[in-house]
Amino acid sequence: MSRPTPLSGFPELLPADRAVEREVIATLSRTFELHGFANIETRVVEPLDRLAKGGEIDKEIYVLRRLQADETADDTGLGMHFDLTVPFARYVLENAGHLEFPFRRYQIQPAWRGERPQEGRYRQFTQADIDVVGKDELPFHHDVEVMRVMIQAVGGLPLPPLSFQINNRKLIQGFYRGLGIPDVTAAIRAIDRLDKMPPEAVIELLEEQAGATREQAERCLELATIRASDHSLVQRVQALGVDDDLLSRGLAEVATVLEGCADLVSEGHVTLEANLRIARGLDYYTGTVVEIFMEGYERLKSVGGGGRYDALADDGRTTYPGVGISFGLSRTLLPLLTEGVLAGSRPVPSAVLVALANEESRPASDRIADALRRRGIACEVAAAPQKYGRQIRYAERRGIPFVWFPATGPDRSDQVKDIRSGDQVDADTASWTPPEADLRQTIVTRSRTDPPVSEEKTE
Amino acid sequence: MSRPTPLSGFPELLPADRAVEREVIATLSRTFELHGFANIETRVVEPLDRLAKGGEIDKEIYVLRRLQADETADDTGLGMHFDLTVPFARYVLENAGHLEFPFRRYQIQPAWRGERPQEGRYRQFTQADIDVVGKDELPFHHDVEVMRVMIQAVGGLPLPPLSFQINNRKLIQGFYRGLGIPDVTAAIRAIDRLDKMPPEAVIELLEEQAGATREQAERCLELATIRASDHSLVQRVQALGVDDDLLSRGLAEVATVLEGCADLVSEGHVTLEANLRIARGLDYYTGTVVEIFMEGYERLKSVGGGGRYDALADDGRTTYPGVGISFGLSRTLLPLLTEGVLAGSRPVPSAVLVALANEESRPASDRIADALRRRGIACEVAAAPQKYGRQIRYAERRGIPFVWFPATGPDRSDQVKDIRSGDQVDADTASWTPPEADLRQTIVTRSRTDPPVSEEKTE
Repeated sequence: MSRPTPLSGFPELLPADRAVEREVIATLSRTFELHGFANIETRVVEPLDRLAKGGEIDKEIYVLRRLQADETADDTGLGMHFDLTVPFARYVLENAGHLEFPFRRYQIQPAWRGERPQEGRYRQFTQADIDVVGKDELPFHHDVEVMRVMIQAVGGLPLPPLSFQINNRKLIQGFYRGLGIPDVTAAIRAIDRLDKMPPEAVIELLEEQAGATREQAERCLELATIRASDHSLVQRVQALGVDDDLLSRGLAEVATVLEGCADLVSEGHVTLEANLRIARGLDYYTGTVVEIFMEGYERLKSVGGGGRYDALADDGRTTYPGVGISFGLSRTLLPLLTEGVLAGSRPVPSAVLVALANEESRPASDRIADALRRRGIACEVAAAPQKYGRQIRYAERRGIPFVWFPATGPDRSDQVKDIRSGDQVDADTASWTPPEADLRQTIVTRSRTDPPVSEEKTE
Repeated sequence: MSRPTPLSGFPELLPADRAVEREVIATLSRTFELHGFANIETRVVEPLDRLAKGGEIDKEIYVLRRLQADETADDTGLGMHFDLTVPFARYVLENAGHLEFPFRRYQIQPAWRGERPQEGRYRQFTQADIDVVGKDELPFHHDVEVMRVMIQAVGGLPLPPLSFQINNRKLIQGFYRGLGIPDVTAAIRAIDRLDKMPPEAVIELLEEQAGATREQAERCLELATIRASDHSLVQRVQALGVDDDLLSRGLAEVATVLEGCADLVSEGHVTLEANLRIARGLDYYTGTVVEIFMEGYERLKSVGGGGRYDALADDGRTTYPGVGISFGLSRTLLPLLTEGVLAGSRPVPSAVLVALANEESRPASDRIADALRRRGIACEVAAAPQKYGRQIRYAERRGIPFVWFPATGPDRSDQVKDIRSGDQVDADTASWTPPEADLRQTIVTRSRTDPPVSEEKTE
């Protein structure tokens, strides 16, 4: 069989990079669990009728067919999930009788979309999602909760600074309604184009598609330019002179989220601000919306997002409102790994290579390795009894920091060499411990020396 | 949308059971890493030409098609992997220039087969695989290594006793060759039917399909009945009076594996024996083969297996021999979870529910929760300021062992209640710690009270 080539849109990591991804997943999981979020894993497939609602996304779904199915047999009727929200909503409905509400869950899994691959957009990609879902009702304080949890979770990662930008659907809808714009939904859709079109073109869209007057359209744009991370937000919106109940409620909610997270974002690695341009497309959000951006990687667009759904799920009798945020693991990590901003400290878990004097002494070297392992030190035994210089180079190529030399006689001691410094000392398997930093594979961060080349994207 | 029903063959776990699966995965991963095995994750799809070799397995592959692809467009040419060996072999070939050999990897991922679901057999199922792969050659001691690692890994799990049953393809082939059986491959295939057919029928198969004489066929069956966990194995095989080089080498290899693992299997939770009936079907094994069985769950057939491939991968220029073992996580865990032999201690990570006196004091309760979290104690704040009795019952329903009551006045102390014993004591967020056993979700094991009903299987 010939040498295979990578499959476009299905990135895979070498072992050192995979260690980075695992460490990131472990850090996120730890934070989510400290806040009482339970992990679930859903099957990768959903019935097509659950995936296909919404229309727009249909063409990106992968459908399963059994290879040797009957000629007459059709598809299985199953498609691969394209996010973790649809399967979660289905899981909640399916298991509602066995869950306690409010139900906090996190889920870190791949999803699939058959779209054209580009930087940060893959056909298989991993997301980390948190959601809180209630039965019949879900108090607003959970909007603050999920924001706080996600800020703390990603704030613990060795990533470039992240910016959480929030808005609120009630605020937008109330403002448009208060202004008297005939088609509020069309107006949201038009404003959502602001990152892809010049303002003048968006004003035209507002006039043509939302039925706005020129003056109304300009006020919509004024609202959309407001960004604030403190209470000045309220004054600036009120200064636009639109009076509407829904607007007031939405504005109060945005202010409450800002205030509720203020203690977490004062140190600057993660920032939070209201950005009244954020609309989160046509999804079924009904209150808080958020998008996450990574400094220096604005070309990736948002690397996460979410918000409040008044009906995350609904089985005809009961409604399950939810609020959640999704963070794009592949979207953030893969560009950083590719550029070398993040790297794994070594491609193997082993902290120690136990040298091998000759093939007959393999059991002795194995016993040394097992003694170290019982004390939590990962190690491997040299594959072959080469000269010690070659065994050291073998360790070097794998990034293993220590080589252990078994005692050469009954009155001699074992020795261990730090192959980076060359230091070699007597050592005992019962007490020797590598420095904490060498014990496990870790993440090495480097600052970017060259600004990345911006890649053109095709919509 | 109506209430969904589970999809046959695609099992999902409730949060408490998922916590069991996660703990099992963490335990396996820890052992694999202590032995220097690096984790990788491969994409879920492979080009069909890589999946379809071997013929027999073809009909179980799920093929991907884009839902909205052109009418004229065909399948993507991609299928979902049905095991972790095919993708690993491809990964090795694709990345050989970036890997150091011998390359030790572990992989814990789902795989998919479109076959009819039954107990222990699912359409989506998770496996844990370890392999060591060499370039051009891979010394035999790695056969002992992978066996030792997997014995220790699964020996650390709260499962019923596991039996590793080993054999060696060289031993079988050498024996058949030494006996003078015309078609050795057909003979292996026939002997492999011993668990599905009476011995007399297998003898007929050996005569008809392998061209064996009645006497040769009987000797094959004699070999297949040998089971031994010590050196008596060698004598019993030699007593059959067949002389062949390959047989001798295979026999020595089996004996070496038994001997090399003897110290690990003396305690009885995991046992290891040679069982010369084991052939591992028609896979491309060339030396050591192993199957794993779980006591009391023989109806599941083997719950794991593997062996030595002289050519795990081959790109036309270089051959990559490998030896590995796969352990069926879904196959073992799901029946145990269903029967209640294993259960999660609680469905949420939270060890503490911080009570809420009234909605105005939510920030105070949040601060208590954050203080505990900083010390590694998972907690959640009550969703609503109900009467404390109702908040305690809320904790009870979630299996949260402790409820924390914020101080009711400036000269009062916080208090924490163990809701199982009713004990309530003064407590300080800076020093109070729950017992180790309550800190995290754990696995609760129960012995089976009723023997499980054996389910009929259809081949």
